[in-house]
Amino acid sequence: MSILGQPLGVQLLAEIWECDQGILNDVKAIEEIMVNAARKADAEIREVVFHRFEPQGVSGVVVISESHLTIHTWPELAYAAVDIFTCGDRVDPWVALESITQELNAEDANVMEISRGMKNLKRLRKNK
Amino acid sequence: MSILGQPLGVQLLAEIWECDQGILNDVKAIEEIMVNAARKADAEIREVVFHRFEPQGVSGVVVISESHLTIHTWPELAYAAVDIFTCGDRVDPWVALESITQELNAEDANVMEISRGMKNLKRLRKNK
Repeated sequence: MSILGQPLGVQLLAEIWECDQGILNDVKAIEEIMVNAARKADAEIREVVFHRFEPQGVSGVVVISESHLTIHTWPELAYAAVDIFTCGDRVDPWVALESITQELNAEDANVMEISRGMKNLKRLRKNK
Repeated sequence: MSILGQPLGVQLLAEIWECDQGILNDVKAIEEIMVNAARKADAEIREVVFHRFEPQGVSGVVVISESHLTIHTWPELAYAAVDIFTCGDRVDPWVALESITQELNAEDANVMEISRGMKNLKRLRKNK
């Protein structure tokens, strides 16, 4: 495969709908779900930061050696915006996402998978 | 405008190339650049977490009331992967991104702008 087909990382942008609204508003539960997802994907956890907003909603980040997992929840819409960004081949972001959708009792989700750090043509020619 | 055209948030995925390699490997400098960008965009900062990797590279997150800013750097490639996710109309993610690219002395960048939390048709009909 060309170097153009070997990005530095892969990022999932997940739009998760029809989640359990109680869970989405529970900062402890959301933190556990995100940390658990990182562990299931065998990511190396570096930092964990979660925050609950008033009157509702949770934001949080798990920084991993392989990049990050983030979540922002809108309990009133039963919606969560989840990103999973992983570098290298060892950690599969889809394993983490499957765990998160299950634990949120989500009934609907749309996901984009985006390659990050594509070495572009200019760079490719420079490095020859 | 239809409710379909009113997402909950906007996310910039920035591929930033040809940055200053010394800055990319300096965790204190990167933290300052990201916090400064959040401030310039008038975001409300909630949590700041940065981490330096061996032998090189920095990862970090600024959690803001309006969502988050993240960065992952590859000093050896003069590359940084930056995300800026903002909710609501008050904070302009492009102001933050402009500040970051300037302070990294970046000479090349590609950006995707993605709408998050599009209320889909099913939800639209349910709420009628």
